[in-house]
Amino acid sequence: MPARRRSVDEHAVRIASIVEPALVALGTERLPIAQAAGRPLAEDVHSAIPLPPFRNAQMDGYAARAEELTTLPVTLPVAGVAPAERSAPRGLPAGHLLRIMTGAPLPDGADCVVPVEDTRTGDGTATVLASRAAGDFVRIVGSDLDRGGLVVAAGTVLAARHLAALAASGTADVAVRARPRVAILTTGAEVVAPGRHLQFGEIYDSNGTALAALAREAGAEVVLQALVDDDPGAFADVLADAVAAADLVVTSGGISQGDYEVVRQVLEPAGAEVTEIAMQPGGPQATAVLSGVPIVCFPGNPVSTQVSFTVFIRPLLRRAAGLATIEPRLLTLEAHVRSVPGKRQWLRGQARGDTVRVVGGASSHLVTTMARADVLIDVPEQVLQLAAGDRVTVLPL
Amino acid sequence: MPARRRSVDEHAVRIASIVEPALVALGTERLPIAQAAGRPLAEDVHSAIPLPPFRNAQMDGYAARAEELTTLPVTLPVAGVAPAERSAPRGLPAGHLLRIMTGAPLPDGADCVVPVEDTRTGDGTATVLASRAAGDFVRIVGSDLDRGGLVVAAGTVLAARHLAALAASGTADVAVRARPRVAILTTGAEVVAPGRHLQFGEIYDSNGTALAALAREAGAEVVLQALVDDDPGAFADVLADAVAAADLVVTSGGISQGDYEVVRQVLEPAGAEVTEIAMQPGGPQATAVLSGVPIVCFPGNPVSTQVSFTVFIRPLLRRAAGLATIEPRLLTLEAHVRSVPGKRQWLRGQARGDTVRVVGGASSHLVTTMARADVLIDVPEQVLQLAAGDRVTVLPL
Repeated sequence: MPARRRSVDEHAVRIASIVEPALVALGTERLPIAQAAGRPLAEDVHSAIPLPPFRNAQMDGYAARAEELTTLPVTLPVAGVAPAERSAPRGLPAGHLLRIMTGAPLPDGADCVVPVEDTRTGDGTATVLASRAAGDFVRIVGSDLDRGGLVVAAGTVLAARHLAALAASGTADVAVRARPRVAILTTGAEVVAPGRHLQFGEIYDSNGTALAALAREAGAEVVLQALVDDDPGAFADVLADAVAAADLVVTSGGISQGDYEVVRQVLEPAGAEVTEIAMQPGGPQATAVLSGVPIVCFPGNPVSTQVSFTVFIRPLLRRAAGLATIEPRLLTLEAHVRSVPGKRQWLRGQARGDTVRVVGGASSHLVTTMARADVLIDVPEQVLQLAAGDRVTVLPL
Repeated sequence: MPARRRSVDEHAVRIASIVEPALVALGTERLPIAQAAGRPLAEDVHSAIPLPPFRNAQMDGYAARAEELTTLPVTLPVAGVAPAERSAPRGLPAGHLLRIMTGAPLPDGADCVVPVEDTRTGDGTATVLASRAAGDFVRIVGSDLDRGGLVVAAGTVLAARHLAALAASGTADVAVRARPRVAILTTGAEVVAPGRHLQFGEIYDSNGTALAALAREAGAEVVLQALVDDDPGAFADVLADAVAAADLVVTSGGISQGDYEVVRQVLEPAGAEVTEIAMQPGGPQATAVLSGVPIVCFPGNPVSTQVSFTVFIRPLLRRAAGLATIEPRLLTLEAHVRSVPGKRQWLRGQARGDTVRVVGGASSHLVTTMARADVLIDVPEQVLQLAAGDRVTVLPL
């Protein structure tokens, strides 16, 4: 372990330097549009057809020639119906009207639509009460989008309105960015899965649940999640599976200076950098690359794990997954806060409008307290106290 | 059809009056916590155990008696190791230290932990260099949460940190609110599914895609989605399936004054209210209740369908699904806007910081233009124009 603690920013650079190359070329997958909601579009989609694809009526009413409506009221024979259904284009005979429904193709010869409320229906005739100019209530071809026009741009995270536009242009499936594949390994012989009975000295595994959910929130797919004990051989086996299956492996626990530190024991001989980070919570962390796959190792304290993932991994995964960055905000502290020398603190906070208050203490075992927070308050290394009313940077959870 | 147009607010009340009773008693479903992300918790979860469940070390170091560390430095024999693993509680013999790892149960007799960096290791001994008070670096039972304490409150939309807290308390599965079940019926003989070849007069169905995606975004499950033509018998059959399967049925198209209006033809004899709404886009709409299931019918123009769902259905579904309301915002118009008399307009807008500009025209066929919008600009019925710089209410999409 190096004598000097590494700063949060230095460690973030180190993690990015091994994770970004592994996530940069994730490729794409092709999905039916109904399954593509929430995914970032991988390529511009252009329309093979103009929208609308044919000239059509904007209102229910009568297709007409504007020049025949100059003297009002005018009563004309109705030559039939141009319904909003599959039909060949049908000409409008001179001196006639054609009944037409919204969206129906405008018959050849017609140049306007008279809304039904501006007419009076007779016996085989209709009387037009208001004049219309050519083009009135007519949707022209391509008035929404020309043939070849951009329907949705690459990078757009697909919401309902984008999927609707894709559907309208006849696009049945799209290429979206592949999700980063993440493996989650949590360690500790004293750690047991929730739902089992707890023996004295045991605790429930919350880190596996937390890291898997955090990875999914950041747009990743969790391809492997395992809880392993303090046996280095067992850990090495699961790690090999993880490296084979994932673009990124995240571990928690087994990384400090204790005597049963399985992650350190397995990874240090494989060239891992084990470093004390000048952050609280956070402490000892490690990074390694095995077979080109980045391994990022967090301490096993639940709050340390969640905070470290949020600070170091979330931005990288979200960028790779094509999701918007979660930007820090500036809020006003409600009450005085002390910090520790030489460590950047991430205090758990609750934001209320423009202000934020600290919830719980700094200790990294306060996992239910963490659940009541909605932001992390970023207290820089050199800051030892902050007063009520001070502006602080917070990272939304 | 009534002579008077119904206002948007009046229609919203009517829709709420039939939809809310159907969604009020949705019940719950029980899920493993790994599948509960994003779902609202249906009941308070209390912890069956205190957290932490046993007194344990906050640091790697030595378990000690504070009263034996008053004269410094002091060298004491190390009686063994209290590892962070399954082990019976082990007493600390008087005049000794016990090596201890973070998280390990504190042995009986010990009352503090001396961090390893404040010690020097000898041969079977350790020298303590800094004094400690009783309680230092000891996490006491229940310091995060007492037995029976509230882990996560009912109504919380479960994120990673909540799932982690549930896991830490040993909660393997939770009751979440059931999703509202929605059926989507789109109509029109001229409407074909995306991916097929378009004949003259045909358009692609975007409303099915839009409504299904909008329903899912609002927290609903889409249990049936069908595209039906202008045949009343076929529509009635699908509608019966929809009513049997869903808590809410939403239709698009077939509701105006044309001659092939299948939704109106089937539902009006069944007691539907068909009403002209004083909104643009929006127009003719209908509501009905069949076998206790609310049916809400929107016009078939794609923008009308999306806007109507967003204005009328989204808030009801989100509330039933336990998701946060999407609140209107006040933004400043970038440029002058005209509206129409007697109709509340929902213009498509793009928000940029504190300002908003209109995209595209008011016509309700502009489905790709809709995809470029991120807000709806709410122009009240009585307002005929707005100037650049005016504050307007917008509804985020």
